[in-house]
Amino acid sequence: MEAVLITIGDEILSGNTVDTNSTYIAAQLKNIGIPVRQIFTISDDVETIKTTLKSAFEIGNLVITTGGLGPTRDDKTKMAFADFFEDELKLDEETFEHLRKLMVKRKREHLLEINKNQAVILSKAFIFQNENGTAPCQMIEENGKIAICLPGVPYEVKPLIQNKIIPYLKEQFSLNFIATRIISVVNFPESLLALTIENWELELPENITLSYLPIGNRVKLRLTGVGDDLKVVENQLDDEIEKLRPIIEEKVISWNGNEIQEILKEILIEKKLTISTAESCTGGELARLITSVSGSSKYFQGGIIPYDYHQKIKILGVSAETISAKTVVSQEVAEEMSLGCQKLFGTDISLSTTGVSGPNSDKFNNEIGVIFYSIRVGDFEQSNRLFLPHLERNDFANFVSQRILQDLVEILVKENS
Amino acid sequence: MEAVLITIGDEILSGNTVDTNSTYIAAQLKNIGIPVRQIFTISDDVETIKTTLKSAFEIGNLVITTGGLGPTRDDKTKMAFADFFEDELKLDEETFEHLRKLMVKRKREHLLEINKNQAVILSKAFIFQNENGTAPCQMIEENGKIAICLPGVPYEVKPLIQNKIIPYLKEQFSLNFIATRIISVVNFPESLLALTIENWELELPENITLSYLPIGNRVKLRLTGVGDDLKVVENQLDDEIEKLRPIIEEKVISWNGNEIQEILKEILIEKKLTISTAESCTGGELARLITSVSGSSKYFQGGIIPYDYHQKIKILGVSAETISAKTVVSQEVAEEMSLGCQKLFGTDISLSTTGVSGPNSDKFNNEIGVIFYSIRVGDFEQSNRLFLPHLERNDFANFVSQRILQDLVEILVKENS
Repeated sequence: MEAVLITIGDEILSGNTVDTNSTYIAAQLKNIGIPVRQIFTISDDVETIKTTLKSAFEIGNLVITTGGLGPTRDDKTKMAFADFFEDELKLDEETFEHLRKLMVKRKREHLLEINKNQAVILSKAFIFQNENGTAPCQMIEENGKIAICLPGVPYEVKPLIQNKIIPYLKEQFSLNFIATRIISVVNFPESLLALTIENWELELPENITLSYLPIGNRVKLRLTGVGDDLKVVENQLDDEIEKLRPIIEEKVISWNGNEIQEILKEILIEKKLTISTAESCTGGELARLITSVSGSSKYFQGGIIPYDYHQKIKILGVSAETISAKTVVSQEVAEEMSLGCQKLFGTDISLSTTGVSGPNSDKFNNEIGVIFYSIRVGDFEQSNRLFLPHLERNDFANFVSQRILQDLVEILVKENS
Repeated sequence: MEAVLITIGDEILSGNTVDTNSTYIAAQLKNIGIPVRQIFTISDDVETIKTTLKSAFEIGNLVITTGGLGPTRDDKTKMAFADFFEDELKLDEETFEHLRKLMVKRKREHLLEINKNQAVILSKAFIFQNENGTAPCQMIEENGKIAICLPGVPYEVKPLIQNKIIPYLKEQFSLNFIATRIISVVNFPESLLALTIENWELELPENITLSYLPIGNRVKLRLTGVGDDLKVVENQLDDEIEKLRPIIEEKVISWNGNEIQEILKEILIEKKLTISTAESCTGGELARLITSVSGSSKYFQGGIIPYDYHQKIKILGVSAETISAKTVVSQEVAEEMSLGCQKLFGTDISLSTTGVSGPNSDKFNNEIGVIFYSIRVGDFEQSNRLFLPHLERNDFANFVSQRILQDLVEILVKENS
């Protein structure tokens, strides 16, 4: 089984919304061995939807659409499906009853009439009821082809995929297994890395593929194996990793972990270490990244964002003299911040950032894109300067936060060896 | 001129990466009046790239690809372009020289040989040099068709688009102007809103379109006007807004602003108010959202993330009795947090959050998805409870943060009337 996704609606084409639905659905399908071959992002227009359904079924036999199911007049997905499958639309009593209960629960009974159209479905469709919104998920199976149409709101899509569609597909079809390993390599440029592991890569079995995913100065090597016996595939991956190990061991900070904050979690829990953050230019992104992992309350004690420099003096005890001598964007201030942070929260590890994320310079006329950060692990201290003038404000905060966590993981991994 | 985007590479199809490039490029093109008609996300395979180029040029006359230009073996874009345009690849001396300088600047001269392939370009191509990476941007113009191929790394794509491609397109083609207005409506369900403004919507001039973009319990109405005279289009939009005003005035918190944090910025600067945050379950996301706006240092004094409950007691002065009587996830704790926060940072406004973002319950056995937040504006205080059990951890933090800022804007707007 191979999947094609169709994202319907002008929100993404107009650059107003990032398409997170497709990423989510692709990852979930991959877990049950269904690769996504292509994604079409199209406008909410009956003819375009029909043409795209046709193209999609030439590429794969499972087509999943998101969006275009709202009660307002810019939604045409249902009509296009009816045309494409030569089906008709009818009011479904069960869906209407589900809708009624939802409206009662939300104390919006008066809206039932307006939303009645949401209970109008394709007559051939199987329905997965939507617990978090008014548009149901419809599925049509015909001649070995499956079409599923989902609403567009991410928090409606996710539970439908996770709790209903994935279990259904798993049960109905006996699928190939897919296993992956992600190896994180640092301080090793992609091109040099490729050259170093070239011979190993050329010898990989046919059912195992390798991808390079560079992120900051880390390269993630993703090994993906496919097969009808999960255990066999996993053993193959382990074997390949053992062959790779001696070639690049000293540059690897993790042999199986995707996000840096997840890699950090494992190390902190294993070593029973606590952590805190003091952020200026990253504005909360560093704490957000750490706490984006479930269970982070086990090691993350807290964070402070002393944005104005008076707050750095007052709350973290940064010295006013240091600020006037070195300006607030300096290695010295970063170091005093991480020290103050370690004391404030009483943690083993503390991290700090101070910089100018732009697009305007700060009141000390520091250069846009300059950042200093400091990492404290017990009495050990390491600070660094980055210069990232080409990054936009939000990318800047994320890039810097990823980098700090990566440096911290490197420090903690090297401690062991 | 109409554009089609092609995103090349398995990172997005495998659900590993969110496609932010397309959103960025679409928004930039829209600003100069070029609509994006479709986005194809495809795998890194010569035949697929060629087929998609063909389909894309049937839809639009400007095709922009991202990705598939790295030095490693999984990149096939250049070959597909050479086939499609019946062109040949050759080493470009100027690009090689640019590459050499970049390597010297990065102290990686030893990598020049490996990266030499990046200077191999299509013989017909016009080159926009890439200041932030090794793959140049190539453009081919033929028979009224323009194809531009970009690297895939977002921080290489953005400056190429913004500083080189957009100015080039603007200068070469006299383009239609596009203007938009975004009206933010709160506490008004989409379907009821649609019914309320139906007559106004039906009377809109042909060159003006309306979209509904629901986000939390806010609906953004986006009016888009197209025409060859920008002033005329803008006046038209203003006229339509004047007609709409009496119909929905009391539910509108902003007549022209996209993101809630930008709407907040304008109000805070106008009213000369300062703000601070105390976050638990949102883990830094609220501060990140506020500081994602350039110039936020004018009103954002700082934030605290007292993640562990001991930190709430120690740093914010939340009473241990309140916590043991009401548990840490309670209205009372939220209120004590915002009070402590207002004092700590000495701000006019303070915001606080405490809740259980899941997937596991907290040590007080509070239900997953429960959140209390408190908003303080001077002596005024408002608190609220939300229950969002269906949201994933990161969506939860973002949804809650958006909602708090929206409530704050509503409070500040109502103060005036």
